[in-house]
Parts: sequence; structure tokens; C-alpha cells
Amino acid sequence: MPTTVHHGDLRRFATDCCRGMGLETKGAELIADSLVQADLWGHQSHGVMRLFWYGARLRTGATVGNAKPEIDGGLGSLATMDGKNGPGQVVAAAAMSHAVSLSKEYGIGAVAARNSGHFGTAMYFTNMAARAGCVGFISTNASPAMAPWGGAGKRVGANPWSWAAPAGRYPPMMLDISNTAVARGKLYLAEKRGDSIPEHWAVDADGAPTTDPASGIGGAILPMAGHKGYAISVIMDMLSGVLTGGRFGDSIIGPYAPEGSSGAGHLALAIDVESARGLAEFEADMESLIDGLKSPPGGPGPDGVFYPGEPEALSDAKLRRDGIELPEETAEELREKSRSIGIAAPF
Amino acid sequence: MPTTVHHGDLRRFATDCCRGMGLETKGAELIADSLVQADLWGHQSHGVMRLFWYGARLRTGATVGNAKPEIDGGLGSLATMDGKNGPGQVVAAAAMSHAVSLSKEYGIGAVAARNSGHFGTAMYFTNMAARAGCVGFISTNASPAMAPWGGAGKRVGANPWSWAAPAGRYPPMMLDISNTAVARGKLYLAEKRGDSIPEHWAVDADGAPTTDPASGIGGAILPMAGHKGYAISVIMDMLSGVLTGGRFGDSIIGPYAPEGSSGAGHLALAIDVESARGLAEFEADMESLIDGLKSPPGGPGPDGVFYPGEPEALSDAKLRRDGIELPEETAEELREKSRSIGIAAPF
Repeated sequence: MPTTVHHGDLRRFATDCCRGMGLETKGAELIADSLVQADLWGHQSHGVMRLFWYGARLRTGATVGNAKPEIDGGLGSLATMDGKNGPGQVVAAAAMSHAVSLSKEYGIGAVAARNSGHFGTAMYFTNMAARAGCVGFISTNASPAMAPWGGAGKRVGANPWSWAAPAGRYPPMMLDISNTAVARGKLYLAEKRGDSIPEHWAVDADGAPTTDPASGIGGAILPMAGHKGYAISVIMDMLSGVLTGGRFGDSIIGPYAPEGSSGAGHLALAIDVESARGLAEFEADMESLIDGLKSPPGGPGPDGVFYPGEPEALSDAKLRRDGIELPEETAEELREKSRSIGIAAPF
Repeated sequence: MPTTVHHGDLRRFATDCCRGMGLETKGAELIADSLVQADLWGHQSHGVMRLFWYGARLRTGATVGNAKPEIDGGLGSLATMDGKNGPGQVVAAAAMSHAVSLSKEYGIGAVAARNSGHFGTAMYFTNMAARAGCVGFISTNASPAMAPWGGAGKRVGANPWSWAAPAGRYPPMMLDISNTAVARGKLYLAEKRGDSIPEHWAVDADGAPTTDPASGIGGAILPMAGHKGYAISVIMDMLSGVLTGGRFGDSIIGPYAPEGSSGAGHLALAIDVESARGLAEFEADMESLIDGLKSPPGGPGPDGVFYPGEPEALSDAKLRRDGIELPEETAEELREKSRSIGIAAPF
């Protein structure tokens, strides 16, 4: 039976746990908020179930909890950032925040950040940009998850990327793409829940399609859209790893391994809408674009039409009201792990 | 039987035809080169078979052949451009060229262009940026090709986008993505060749899967990767249409219609690699990323591993040497249409 928790209680609990694991208050609040926000958006595979995976890396020093990301190069509206092996959320938020500042001065701003880590949900950061009146983009590279198209072996990361933009009376339009056929977290969630997985999600270690999440975890995820997903992933590695002067290819350490610096990097980019055209005019056109999508001739199909980010906004509104349901195994793990650092779970 | 033509002859012929259709030499050369380059890359659906489709639009004045795109706003490293309903290639090349200049001054530069048209092959323009030592991005919106995910009716364009980057001793890494399961031009090519099409490419006007290219053209193309391809397409419309202050949604006129201004827009973006880190170090890392992809443990699959842009580079090298093969129907159409404007085809 799932446990229902109010998002505020869950956020306070996750913040306390992050502080208990040695993070300063600001970083703890940011990581907690990003995890709970993923749960609210309905992306539980990127929610609080990951809390103590990050904790394991903080304990070994693989992630440097209180690292202060530092701008250390660039030119004009492009900056480079050394994340100092800090938590990915802290580095990505610092990078996006600086990109947004640059965009207010130069129209567009970008920060190429290296020595970062797994940042959770990409659209958490582009949503920051959208809330600041910008079109935001972020990419990351990640630990190997799939084979190069036409090759064998787990060598290419899922390398997620996101765009977001303000949308007037609608919640921001947000895209968050993992280039695998499915986010790896969904295999862990299926394994946790005892579910089987669809056949096009993954292959086992021998390269054969599998419906068993554990075999998929031990094998490789398939790219979305065949060679296109592979190619997009390589490009995101170019942006996040090569352009930033960070690590790339199969050398990124993922959040599931407790040891070894991650080496992940990000490109954060913000375009100030007001500098391109009036924000009010932009938002009016965004409403009209969305209205057009939602009322096609012939009417909507059985599930209706959503704009990108709308399913997450609907989930957010519902779960803020009704509470977040944690699978019992996640709730029990959180209770047990928090107890071990002297924190009582409010569920 | 296909007709084989040397790329130089084909380029001169296409340039003459463009001039014969009223374009100035510079615009004529650019359009001809971009079409022949698409043929050289092995993307015949975007090659010279499109020459007189553009011609039809020039004749009606829907495309203003000698329009001079004009920078008319922006801030710092972000500029807006009015394409004055000129040919998409002319507007996109002007936008990318200005974005590259801005990037040399500010580290990153972007141009949001409206009142443009169909620009052919997206990676023609990002390749320009890569050749100038930049990471380049371009997006466009396009005439409606698919239904919104969960809805009915042809309302969302394929809205192609591209990234490219220099890659040292390798030809540039280039990504060129159409968000439909297949480029619409491939249906026209299949129709021209009398081929049937795979079932996941398109649905007919009633929404049923079809293997007949003509039924697919009259119906709607399916998005790549299901809802992901739909969402990416909407985001590219946001960047290309809404952010630029141009047209968006189902209001773009495609290259197959001889009348009506296109209304398409583009976002062109360039990041100067030297401003982010040394270009030589970047290129060395790109070589190493590519080498890593091409030598996975377990060895390559039956067709080997290619990096994004490599199949095009291989095709380019082969066809520059062996000549471009035009399907007989294309060759015949080009002979006939060029004759009508007093130009003799060299094939």
C-alpha cells in the first residue's frame, strides 16, 4: 500500500536528510525541492526515491557536498564554470542562474559547466529560466546506458536535454527528453514495483530484447527513434562534455555508483524573450499556439491533446492538493535510511 | 535508368536555372549549392529535385527572390531579422552568418529570423558554423505534416533542427533531425520512384496506416518516437515561430504550394569554440569521442558504427568522385523545366 505524503512535509524531510548528509542549507533545499518537484510532476523515477543514492556519493566524497561552482572563463555572454565536483543540481542551478543574468545583459547567455554530477530532472532548470522570462535550454551527459547505433556494448549515455518557455496564462511549455527509449530510472522503478517492462525499452547483456527490468539494467537501454536517438545523444555529449572541457563518452560515473567523481557537464542557455520581442506579445502567441494544438479539426483523440509540459502541470496541481503517493518500498527505505542519520520520517 | 551528373555541372546548371528564375547571382549560387550539397550528402529528397518547386513560388511572388534580409532588433549578442519573404536558404545563411559574427565578439550569438521560407537542409547552415570554428544550431518551423499527439488533423510541422560542430581530422559532426518518423520529401521521392513506404511512416486521411506514398501525402506523417517527436516539434515551432515574432502552428505555407508567403522562421545560434576553450583541445577531444564510438568493446555490428554526419561525409566523398545519380523522372523534369526558361541541361 502506498504512503501518501504532503509535498511540504516531504520537502522539509528531504531537506533535513540532505543537511544530515552534510549539505549546507541552500544546497539541501535545492536538492530536496528538485526531487519533490519531480515527484509532483509525476516523474517518480527522478523523485525522492533517489535521495539516499545521492547520500551514498556524498559520504564517499565522490560528490563534494559544499562545493562552490566557480565561473572561470569565457567571453561576453558565454561563461565557463568549474562545478568542483559538487552536486549536479547545485552546479546546474548556478549555471542556469548565471545564463539568465547574462541574457538580461546580452539578449542571450550561456554557461558551459564541467566537473558536475547527475542533476536529476533537466526541466527543473529550464523551468527556472522560463519563470525568469527566458527561453531556457539545458543538456547534460550521463553514464553509459546504450550501445552506439550499429555497435555493441554500453557506451553512450541517455544524455537528457530540455527546453522551456513561458506560456502566458498556461504553465510554462517544457520539454524534457532522454534519448533512450525510456529513462533508466523507470527500469529501477519497475524493478522496485515488481513490474515487467515493454519489449522495446531494453536489451539484456547478450543484446536480446527483454521484459525483465533487472536484465535490462544489466544490459543496455535502446535509443528512442533508432539512429536518431543515438545521434542526438552524441550531440548532447559534445555540448555537455567536449564543449565544456569536461569528461565525455563512456567516462561519466552515474548516480547509482557510490564512488568516483561523476565528471558530467552541462550547457545551460537562456534567451531573454523581452530582448527578442515583447514578453507580453510572446506570451499571447504562446497561448494561441497552445489553443491551436488543443482544438484540432476532427476533435481530440481519446486522451485529448496536451502541450509539452501540460501533463506535468496537471500532475503538479493534483498532487499538491492530494499529496504524493510513495510506493511502500520507497517509503520504507526512506524511513530506515533517515533513521540511521537521526531523522524521523513524517510518514 | 538514372542519369549520372558531375556535382560541378549540376551546381552550374542549378545556378543558371535560379538566375533564370530571377534570382541574383549570390542567392542563385547559394540555393544551387545547398541543393547539390543535399544530393552529395545522399539526401536526394532535399536535392535538385526541389529546384523548380522553389521556381514556382518565385514566379508567383510568394517567395521574393531578391529580398535583402534585414537585422531590425535585439540586444547585444541576440539579433532579430526580417527575412522579407526571401528564399529560406538566403535568410538562413544570413542569419547563421550574423550569429557566427556575434559569437566571435560575445562568445555566443543568436539570430531570430521571421518572414523566411523553406530552407532545404538544416545542416547546410550548421555546417557553415562548424567550418567557422563554432558549434551551430538552427531550427525552422514548417507547413503542417502531422497531427498533435492524441489529436486528429494535420496541424504540426516536421520542424527540422540541426546541431553541428568541428571534429578535427574528421568532417564536422552534424545532426539533422526531422521530428516526423520520416522526412516528407521521402514520400514524394517514393511516389516519384513508384515505391511503397513502410507502415510506420504515415497515416492516410482517415488516420489509418498506409504503405502508399500518395495516401500518406494526403494524410499525415507520424512523429518519430511517439509523443517525444510531437513535443520536440512544438518546441521548435516555439523557437522558430513564436520567439521570432513570425507565424507558427498550422499557418506556415510549405514549398509544395506555389502561392502564399511561407511565414516560416528560424533560430540560428553559434557558440565560438575558442571562447569556451581552445579549439585545438576541443577538436582533439572530438576525435577521441568519435574514436571511442567507433571502437566499442564487442566490436561493431554488421554495418559498423558511424558518428552523426559520417554517413553524409562518406556519401559526399563518393559522389564528388563518381557523380550524382538522378532518378530518370527528376532528370527529365529538370530538362523540361529548364528548357522552358531557355537553359540547356548538361545531362
